[in-house]
Amino acid sequence: MPVNIGLIGLGMIGRDHLQRFSSVINNARVTAVCDINSGVADMLARQYQAEAFYDAIEMIQSDSVDAIFICSIGPVHKEQILAAIKAGKPVFCEKPLTPTAAESKEIIEAETAYGKRLLQLGFMRRFDPGYIALKQGINSELGEILLMHCAHRNPSVPESYTLEMAINDSATHEIDIIRYLLDENIVSVRVDKPRKKTSRALPHLQDPLIVIFETESGVRIDDELFVNCNYGYDICCEVVGENAIASLTEQALNVTRSASGVGRHIAKTCMERFATAYDREVQNFIDNISNGKAMSGPSSWDGYVVALVCDAGLASLKDGQKHEVTVPPCPALYRQP
Amino acid sequence: MPVNIGLIGLGMIGRDHLQRFSSVINNARVTAVCDINSGVADMLARQYQAEAFYDAIEMIQSDSVDAIFICSIGPVHKEQILAAIKAGKPVFCEKPLTPTAAESKEIIEAETAYGKRLLQLGFMRRFDPGYIALKQGINSELGEILLMHCAHRNPSVPESYTLEMAINDSATHEIDIIRYLLDENIVSVRVDKPRKKTSRALPHLQDPLIVIFETESGVRIDDELFVNCNYGYDICCEVVGENAIASLTEQALNVTRSASGVGRHIAKTCMERFATAYDREVQNFIDNISNGKAMSGPSSWDGYVVALVCDAGLASLKDGQKHEVTVPPCPALYRQP
Amino acid sequence: MPVNIGLIGLGMIGRDHLQRFSSVINNARVTAVCDINSGVADMLARQYQAEAFYDAIEMIQSDSVDAIFICSIGPVHKEQILAAIKAGKPVFCEKPLTPTAAESKEIIEAETAYGKRLLQLGFMRRFDPGYIALKQGINSELGEILLMHCAHRNPSVPESYTLEMAINDSATHEIDIIRYLLDENIVSVRVDKPRKKTSRALPHLQDPLIVIFETESGVRIDDELFVNCNYGYDICCEVVGENAIASLTEQALNVTRSASGVGRHIAKTCMERFATAYDREVQNFIDNISNGKAMSGPSSWDGYVVALVCDAGLASLKDGQKHEVTVPPCPALYRQP
Amino acid sequence: MPVNIGLIGLGMIGRDHLQRFSSVINNARVTAVCDINSGVADMLARQYQAEAFYDAIEMIQSDSVDAIFICSIGPVHKEQILAAIKAGKPVFCEKPLTPTAAESKEIIEAETAYGKRLLQLGFMRRFDPGYIALKQGINSELGEILLMHCAHRNPSVPESYTLEMAINDSATHEIDIIRYLLDENIVSVRVDKPRKKTSRALPHLQDPLIVIFETESGVRIDDELFVNCNYGYDICCEVVGENAIASLTEQALNVTRSASGVGRHIAKTCMERFATAYDREVQNFIDNISNGKAMSGPSSWDGYVVALVCDAGLASLKDGQKHEVTVPPCPALYRQP
Repeated sequence: MPVNIGLIGLGMIGRDHLQRFSSVINNARVTAVCDINSGVADMLARQYQAEAFYDAIEMIQSDSVDAIFICSIGPVHKEQILAAIKAGKPVFCEKPLTPTAAESKEIIEAETAYGKRLLQLGFMRRFDPGYIALKQGINSELGEILLMHCAHRNPSVPESYTLEMAINDSATHEIDIIRYLLDENIVSVRVDKPRKKTSRALPHLQDPLIVIFETESGVRIDDELFVNCNYGYDICCEVVGENAIASLTEQALNVTRSASGVGRHIAKTCMERFATAYDREVQNFIDNISNGKAMSGPSSWDGYVVALVCDAGLASLKDGQKHEVTVPPCPALYRQP
Repeated sequence: MPVNIGLIGLGMIGRDHLQRFSSVINNARVTAVCDINSGVADMLARQYQAEAFYDAIEMIQSDSVDAIFICSIGPVHKEQILAAIKAGKPVFCEKPLTPTAAESKEIIEAETAYGKRLLQLGFMRRFDPGYIALKQGINSELGEILLMHCAHRNPSVPESYTLEMAINDSATHEIDIIRYLLDENIVSVRVDKPRKKTSRALPHLQDPLIVIFETESGVRIDDELFVNCNYGYDICCEVVGENAIASLTEQALNVTRSASGVGRHIAKTCMERFATAYDREVQNFIDNISNGKAMSGPSSWDGYVVALVCDAGLASLKDGQKHEVTVPPCPALYRQP
Repeated sequence: MPVNIGLIGLGMIGRDHLQRFSSVINNARVTAVCDINSGVADMLARQYQAEAFYDAIEMIQSDSVDAIFICSIGPVHKEQILAAIKAGKPVFCEKPLTPTAAESKEIIEAETAYGKRLLQLGFMRRFDPGYIALKQGINSELGEILLMHCAHRNPSVPESYTLEMAINDSATHEIDIIRYLLDENIVSVRVDKPRKKTSRALPHLQDPLIVIFETESGVRIDDELFVNCNYGYDICCEVVGENAIASLTEQALNVTRSASGVGRHIAKTCMERFATAYDREVQNFIDNISNGKAMSGPSSWDGYVVALVCDAGLASLKDGQKHEVTVPPCPALYRQP
Repeated sequence: MPVNIGLIGLGMIGRDHLQRFSSVINNARVTAVCDINSGVADMLARQYQAEAFYDAIEMIQSDSVDAIFICSIGPVHKEQILAAIKAGKPVFCEKPLTPTAAESKEIIEAETAYGKRLLQLGFMRRFDPGYIALKQGINSELGEILLMHCAHRNPSVPESYTLEMAINDSATHEIDIIRYLLDENIVSVRVDKPRKKTSRALPHLQDPLIVIFETESGVRIDDELFVNCNYGYDICCEVVGENAIASLTEQALNVTRSASGVGRHIAKTCMERFATAYDREVQNFIDNISNGKAMSGPSSWDGYVVALVCDAGLASLKDGQKHEVTVPPCPALYRQP
């Protein structure tokens, strides 16, 4: 029996997931879609043979959906997630969990009260084969990890991209993946603003930025955020261990010898770079439901802790100082077995 | 409604597909399994909650299956495929279609009489992202194709591997993929036996071999078959065009800097190298059924033509001469739109 | 007529240069060698058919030498260089120019008084084909430079290696090459000591370190100094420009497919990695003499400015703060034409 | 005392060597230049402060030259080499040794009569660091060699390039390097003319060609000759051993991340690709003279044997058949110690 999905928020990422459910995902179907823009909801409902809702809470409570997929904007996440938990329905939520750490805490409390993990957060990189291989290397041949060098490069960003988004939308991915790779928390953040910025950035943006993280055990990570790099969507991650060093590749399929030399393709967009990761995170969500398991993958707790780190990052963005992050003990519900 | 699959042949590849249906494939479930070894059939039926059959024809005719998955040995393929066609049921068949070209012809006639493509053949490489990217390069930037250099390397082969299998089991993949990449037939084959063979091969095997193909338009392809290469399962393909040259990569996920230098992983087995391709070929089969479409992907005709080329290869293996391949005109049913 | 060289200091690097003169260098011969250890001086004089000196100043003044090659320890550099300048003889000096910036200033004054560049400093990286290609990229396709990421990794260091040497002996190379690549001065230095250090380092060493430089125009450079990296002598340099990014390669000659994957060699020692650079810097010194030109390549001024940056680095090593570097205007003698 | 060189033939390669002597080569100077075009001889004599000759034999006999450098056209090589041997003067000769194997034999006889190797042949690839590393791999980690795959690609060739030159000028380099790498002779040659040729070739040229060599021990080598490949001067060589496989790299100095992906430079010309090899072969010639040693490196015997293989290649070019090569026993003078 396929899982009946109710999908909220029919913007770019929402439509991308709709398409994914119809073409790639196993054992699930979108039976309801919801958007405050009723025209959009009606149109996509027709296109994908689903029921249209204009009110998220109503849809969450409807018997026609077994699980909830949240692609709406951050400020409404808390209310929708809490409604799903109240209904006892599994919920996938696109990042960020909530705009503030305080709100995330409420979700953790509700989920803890429910007694079982119901939520998977959309940190898709944990499902990228490249990062998974990197984690295998960390757990085997690299030895004690000492440093990481990351880069997060976009070809360009729209005018709506603000300096804060460099932390909340871009660095947030590295924050999560650092915790995933190293199995420990980040304890400090410092944002370095290089004096020189690219002329390709809009006037309000400082681009690039360098963010420096430190983990509990003392691993130092630098993360270059360069969102107008011009040439591609290029995610780099080099993990420096005592024995050896491992890095992500471009996952290129071909190598070409041409007048411009011998070369490999670099992705142009996030969707291209993480296509497999997006498919797998969603299938993981469905598989846990189908198999009657609690949710696995990135959790509310991960969302909360990442929000704490982002808060420190935003503070550092303002004053350039190093800011400590104090992470409370992880509740039992969210501890890895 | 998921497609109900009846799977015949519970050897290594059969079990691999069983596992794939249970964990990866969308919109399908294996409802019946069949093996002449009833103990094996019973055991796997229990494990996967399917019905056990010991007679393939009986299972093919059973109402409990919508589509047939053939993983049995080559000599019984013809009978099973013809039964599936007679029952009007879609059928996936592992390569080879049949051991001889003559038998394949009977299948083509039956399918043609039925009036619609019912069969997909298990040439999984056509679903490998690397080969697909290579085909895109061929169709765009490479210019007129002049040459191809291929290598097909296994770490080692079991004692049961015969010299003929170098053609029928190993080269067969390149034969199919050459036709796929270049959209034309192979018109001649010549097998070169290098005087020197690896000491790692068993005494009865000439290893490596070089096979040289020529296509209708005159593209010359050399294919190194080296099935005791020791180091990995390494599939190489370099396409030489008038403008540029493109090759498959190892599709490595990480690059490691260590005492042995800076390196990328090479797959150790066929299953590892073509994991994605196997998943996608099966999903393609199911998706066509779900969507009520005729079969796409490698066809009976492809199986037949590859068998013709293999026959020429086997003849050349004996006398070392170049053998021509005469391919009849492609029936309308099998022509690409 | 070959240039007659008097070489001072017959330790490891001195002997390496002796061998280089006898086997690689054009238009020069070592006619005199000097070491305070007379036994060593006698032995190598015999071996290379040169005259033995035990007193550097005496040798510098001797008519039997046209040019001086200083491979002695830093504290005696100033006296020897000043003697060479007084004698009007070209002088090649291994780095550092002098242990302190103050001493370097005396050399600049003496050379300026002489009126012509007589000294070339042993920053061999400027002669490495990889760095030269990087500079060409910077001057052409990369666009405005924004960031650089460097790593300086040694397999291990001897017990005598101190924390200060991480700045004065290791980072000094990046300090020089940054100025060479970007054609501008460094204006600040900050040393970050990651809390975690490799267990392979001796107890007195903090290893790795991260040094962060900023240039006049605002380019931010991070430099990982990791002198017990275990796997190789690995010098990395990635230059991030507005249009594109370029990095050094390992300059590997072969790629190998083996059980450990597909890989390229990484150098094990500085001598291996910079073999060509060492040859070319010495030939450059000789060629300028042969052609009656003033010295080119790294100058006393470069040595002085690098010493100023090192001083700031040493201060930061103590207090962890960012230290500004004030570079006086470059005297006319040292300005590039 | 520098070696006084008399250089014959002031065409492209002759001028290239003149420049090399004046800027790179140690312990030698060109004291005489010779060309049948007296204007050219006079001009370059003036430019390089050498004596001008218009008659090669006269220059060879002159006391003003210690050693001879032959860059003239092939048909006059024999006379000039024999004159040099008669004069007991070391002689460097650009390939081919002579246009026919028969003439080469005369040279071998003269040199054998003289009793000491006086000649080094211009097969510069033996001095390429990449090929040298490949040979080290062959002698160490690769295990027994079974196959080689070579490609010899030029961006384009002038109108004067004939089909025979594909053997005598292009394949000749692989013929020599195969013998160098494998330390054994080639015993058969077969030229395959692919039916399809590039439209970039002039009408009289079949391009590409595939040449297949077999060595005494049975190693099979295929060599793609593609002299209008459009994109670069690209020399590929993959050596397949029982344990592992090694290939030449492009010897790239930088890797660039840009809109066209992540790539490395490929050389555009022979001079660029083999710059180091050219320098080293000439220095090797001079060093042997300076040290009073017999010549090392490629010999008259190598030139003769390569000519025998080329003769078989030219025969195969005509009839498409495999042609055997019978190499007489190597005279004692030319045997490696």
